[in-house]
Amino acid sequence: MTTAPLLPTPTDPRLSRTVKGIDESGQPKSISVIEERPLTIYLNRQEIVTAMTIGDYPEYLALGFLLNQRMLSETDQVTRIDVDAELEVAVVRTAGVTDVEDKLHKKTRTSGCAMGTVFGDMMAGLDGLSLPDTPVHTSTFYDLSYQINHTPSLYMETGAIHGTALCQGRQILAYMEDVGRHNAVDKIAGWMHLKDVPAADKVLYTTGRLTSEMVIKTALMGIPTLISRSGFTAWGVDIAQQVGLTLIGRMRGKKFTCLSGQHRLVFDQDLSLVPDEDRKMQRKSARHD
Amino acid sequence: MTTAPLLPTPTDPRLSRTVKGIDESGQPKSISVIEERPLTIYLNRQEIVTAMTIGDYPEYLALGFLLNQRMLSETDQVTRIDVDAELEVAVVRTAGVTDVEDKLHKKTRTSGCAMGTVFGDMMAGLDGLSLPDTPVHTSTFYDLSYQINHTPSLYMETGAIHGTALCQGRQILAYMEDVGRHNAVDKIAGWMHLKDVPAADKVLYTTGRLTSEMVIKTALMGIPTLISRSGFTAWGVDIAQQVGLTLIGRMRGKKFTCLSGQHRLVFDQDLSLVPDEDRKMQRKSARHD
Repeated sequence: MTTAPLLPTPTDPRLSRTVKGIDESGQPKSISVIEERPLTIYLNRQEIVTAMTIGDYPEYLALGFLLNQRMLSETDQVTRIDVDAELEVAVVRTAGVTDVEDKLHKKTRTSGCAMGTVFGDMMAGLDGLSLPDTPVHTSTFYDLSYQINHTPSLYMETGAIHGTALCQGRQILAYMEDVGRHNAVDKIAGWMHLKDVPAADKVLYTTGRLTSEMVIKTALMGIPTLISRSGFTAWGVDIAQQVGLTLIGRMRGKKFTCLSGQHRLVFDQDLSLVPDEDRKMQRKSARHD
Repeated sequence: MTTAPLLPTPTDPRLSRTVKGIDESGQPKSISVIEERPLTIYLNRQEIVTAMTIGDYPEYLALGFLLNQRMLSETDQVTRIDVDAELEVAVVRTAGVTDVEDKLHKKTRTSGCAMGTVFGDMMAGLDGLSLPDTPVHTSTFYDLSYQINHTPSLYMETGAIHGTALCQGRQILAYMEDVGRHNAVDKIAGWMHLKDVPAADKVLYTTGRLTSEMVIKTALMGIPTLISRSGFTAWGVDIAQQVGLTLIGRMRGKKFTCLSGQHRLVFDQDLSLVPDEDRKMQRKSARHD
């Protein structure tokens, strides 16, 4: 696997743009805003979905999406990923036709959009899934949180964007951002697959909420611990408990809440040494949605 | 139309749940978390999409979604909306088969999920759309922002949820919340349609980001002004400028940024009288994602 961490590139001119407007006093004001583009993902000849994305790493996004939706299995051999930036299309090609193509073709002849069923397939994928009991030290959460809040990012440039970081111990291995919080996770999944990065010893950090889909994707990726500065949904908690995933939310300053998989936690942090989150970070996160 | 405002019901036991966990010290901690449920929306016999929702007002959500996706036109006569809470299904029934059913049936026979095309249809719906030049007084923004931040809501109970309010002058007419920020807007659209609420003199306030989809939905609803405490995407701004929608983001305390439709603004607020946003509100919004 690669050793150099994959970090955001806020200076990439394709990802943000300066827009002129006015402020609350009617005075001219220019701000930098994040780009948002459609990317239509195909599995071979089958159109799957159109995602709204910032447009970086379309090949990781397309592959990761198909893996996380269980439209691709480990047994499917990915032969090529073609991206046409102008057509805003990414095509993931496999050796032979996948089960999903057959299934979707049948399904969609009868009922329009197969996404409902696909979600069912994601749930089914959790049956019998068992995540490794890799212990995690709470002191690493504070380190990672600090690093993520201080790493130059598109978020700092423009706001209105989510970040997801794949971490090992106190190390960020890959930090992806996107307007769609699930896209950032899918890009991580695609990168892990192409780089053969094992999941068992990793922690996933997201700025987004811990919804059912976020928890399912993390579990299907085989990552045993998911951390967020944001809140939970009840179904997200149910699923995490069902698969034994360690689910930590509302991580801010000293504080966090763990609602599942507490057995992995090693409480090694002296909390008196952790500063409360400063206002700057609060305002920063306040723009996180 | 109804005169009593439709406000959140944070006390509804179906919408949130108390979950036991531990805090950063390993001490027991219980928090209230928002429910999240799938709702599969049908147009007559055509399955359209499965949305993740808190589950209130499924009939408004189903109808509003179909209207905002332009799967239903004003000419389609809605005869009934059937909701089966157990099957988590909402069926919107019309007199006769809609164009979209024909189209989706053709489309989905060939390409799986029609959502990509449908997005194209939403864009097409903007051609020649013209929004009324209803002036808006900036003083009302501060009133509305205060009311929305202080109205009892599921957000205050649980976090991890978005709110959208339909407003007229200083009045909130309908305030919807949902785990999906688009769902909250769609519920407003469904409510407006069933209650025959005109759009020309309204302002839409959302806690969510001003993405392309949020701007398109607001424009298709015929609402000339959209306000958010969150940020912008470049495509959202492009579309707002294209249709002449007044787009205001990053509204916090005294501050806001207007990137489109500035001609509607009447600057009647003495800013020295507006308090800066207090920390509580910042933390509150910090959980908004």
